[in-house]
Amino acid sequence: MIKNNKFKKMFPMLENIVYLDSAALAQKPLSVIEAGVEFYSKFSISTRTSDSKIGILVQQKVDLVREKIAKLIDAKSDEIIFSSGTTESINFFSLMAKQFLKEDDEILLSYYNHSSNIVPWMQIAKELKLKIVFSKNILKDINEKTKLICYSQVTNNLNQNFNSDEIYKKAKENNAIVLNDAAQAIAHEKVTFKNSDVVVFSANKMYGPTGLGVLAIKNKILKNINPVFFGGGAVEKIESSNDWVSKKGVSAFEPGTPNLAAIWQFEKSIDLINEIKIENIHELNLELSKYLYDQLLTIKDIKIASKRGDFITLFNIKNYASQDIASYLGHKDIYVRSGNFCSKLIPLVEDENDYVRVSLAFYNDKSDIDKLIQALKEGGDFLSFL
Amino acid sequence: MIKNNKFKKMFPMLENIVYLDSAALAQKPLSVIEAGVEFYSKFSISTRTSDSKIGILVQQKVDLVREKIAKLIDAKSDEIIFSSGTTESINFFSLMAKQFLKEDDEILLSYYNHSSNIVPWMQIAKELKLKIVFSKNILKDINEKTKLICYSQVTNNLNQNFNSDEIYKKAKENNAIVLNDAAQAIAHEKVTFKNSDVVVFSANKMYGPTGLGVLAIKNKILKNINPVFFGGGAVEKIESSNDWVSKKGVSAFEPGTPNLAAIWQFEKSIDLINEIKIENIHELNLELSKYLYDQLLTIKDIKIASKRGDFITLFNIKNYASQDIASYLGHKDIYVRSGNFCSKLIPLVEDENDYVRVSLAFYNDKSDIDKLIQALKEGGDFLSFL
Repeated sequence: MIKNNKFKKMFPMLENIVYLDSAALAQKPLSVIEAGVEFYSKFSISTRTSDSKIGILVQQKVDLVREKIAKLIDAKSDEIIFSSGTTESINFFSLMAKQFLKEDDEILLSYYNHSSNIVPWMQIAKELKLKIVFSKNILKDINEKTKLICYSQVTNNLNQNFNSDEIYKKAKENNAIVLNDAAQAIAHEKVTFKNSDVVVFSANKMYGPTGLGVLAIKNKILKNINPVFFGGGAVEKIESSNDWVSKKGVSAFEPGTPNLAAIWQFEKSIDLINEIKIENIHELNLELSKYLYDQLLTIKDIKIASKRGDFITLFNIKNYASQDIASYLGHKDIYVRSGNFCSKLIPLVEDENDYVRVSLAFYNDKSDIDKLIQALKEGGDFLSFL
Repeated sequence: MIKNNKFKKMFPMLENIVYLDSAALAQKPLSVIEAGVEFYSKFSISTRTSDSKIGILVQQKVDLVREKIAKLIDAKSDEIIFSSGTTESINFFSLMAKQFLKEDDEILLSYYNHSSNIVPWMQIAKELKLKIVFSKNILKDINEKTKLICYSQVTNNLNQNFNSDEIYKKAKENNAIVLNDAAQAIAHEKVTFKNSDVVVFSANKMYGPTGLGVLAIKNKILKNINPVFFGGGAVEKIESSNDWVSKKGVSAFEPGTPNLAAIWQFEKSIDLINEIKIENIHELNLELSKYLYDQLLTIKDIKIASKRGDFITLFNIKNYASQDIASYLGHKDIYVRSGNFCSKLIPLVEDENDYVRVSLAFYNDKSDIDKLIQALKEGGDFLSFL
């Protein structure tokens, strides 16, 4: 067990707080923060201002970051669309999916999906008269009627240990498309086009900036899809009052000025993951998650809903509301969450409606957990007044 | 004429370059840049991590910035929806408009609109069998069939001197909704709900961060519109496999983690405008625009398409392609644009297909224009080799 994690000091936010909510927002290393300053101070030129020294450099950077993202998930550059975040990526793809889904097609959704990966599909299902199938066991429930499977390789709530390779294999046997909401997975483990057709995630949960996300769509799907949002930089020409020509490639899907500062910053978080290596990040998390689990067991009347080794640990303490526990800790600068974490269907398949959530990242260490445990032990009296 | 503009030194990018493309991207003052560092170093907590010291501060900041935006355009806080930029705002509103537009309704668009304010409407028109009416004179062309008028108070190309008050008055007489693409106007002059129903703009063109925009919709319209994007933070509950309940208010329209760093930064650009006052910004620009015009007239074989005093000045020089001129200047660190600036219909109503564009902001000064003019005068020989 690494006591004083050498990575922690790279993250300015972690100097003064115990941060245990990385599933909501991952902290940013100094390199990411400084890249924002670098962009705005030295490279703040639009990619549209293309015939200029810096304009050319900015376009090269956007291309480079797109390549780095592609490499991260075994995709190609022309399969990577920038968005403002995971939620937008899923909503975009749901609008795109209207072009190939038809009445009575089935969309298979895990009960453990985030609501951003449920409600857009309910809306499309309503419009197109599709059938939504909610599933406790994605692998088992894939069948010949399944046209689209939307799940999270790693959920933001109770870990499901999905076997992504098996799910993808069975999906392909049934000609279904697999969308992997990798918002959580991308920060902790390998995410790959080898077992998914559409991958979505946010820079924000990958130690990067807020306001940037990725919608990665395999070329064989993307080439048959028309854009769903339109505007500057995505339109080649307007031919008449009712017809226009889109640009070729991913440009067609990215109207408007890109979030250039965030792209600049995101490169640094990709570099960070590549330097540390995702396997090492995974290993650090796993070790710490087990320590967390074992320590939580020493708390009186605790009920841990997660398994030993899950990166996200949900628990309840008898007679205390989860929100009161989160609020008590939060006012001691120990950041956890309470509730159902936008996973609005969990109450239908689990005994509890809400939990306290502790989510770890590789920058956490034993001392963070010790402080949490100490606060929980000291809190008995205080909490009882809430 | 202010020779050494006192504001210029607030903008780090302006130390080494002559920046004349503020219509594409406005430069950011140090206060905006530093606010990004401040957020990520001291306040980087999700608004979802709401039961905590910093989580509460972040939510208060989001609320405060929303209020400041509302005040800027004479709106109310609950009329302000955050987006990723102007283009997204317009696309969102076009999807929303599908809820109230119907077959044979007419949408009136200016020929001088940016393509982000043309193509989304062409798409909706195609889907709903609406009629698009392109107009050279918006005020004249409003009639009883007009249901929606989309124009820009200030265009990004040839200034149209729209009379927004008159347009709005006639629109209301005909029960039409007015969408004002204020992407340009917001940086230079007063933009107000007093003469528009829907206002869209980007922080990026208002001396603020990339990746943040505003979609402001008057309450009387918004209250009858359902969200078009869905997900975390916007959904109150999921009631069954085909029904859910949205949150109340603007939250329903902002699924996903907000671009918190950008909101933090945007506050500083709003503060800047409020401190300097928009009337003073307008005055500085106007004076400088006239100086630019007068100086450009000294260039041999120049044809200026804009009027004296326009903040955006388009010109061509006989025998030189506009792109060659922009490229020549751009490689001397003088940033201008060439082309039609995503205003894809201009060739239909003007003699020229493309132009060199010089767009000014209040941080420019006489020396910027003198350097541009000097480079153009020196450039004759060089350009002839291109």
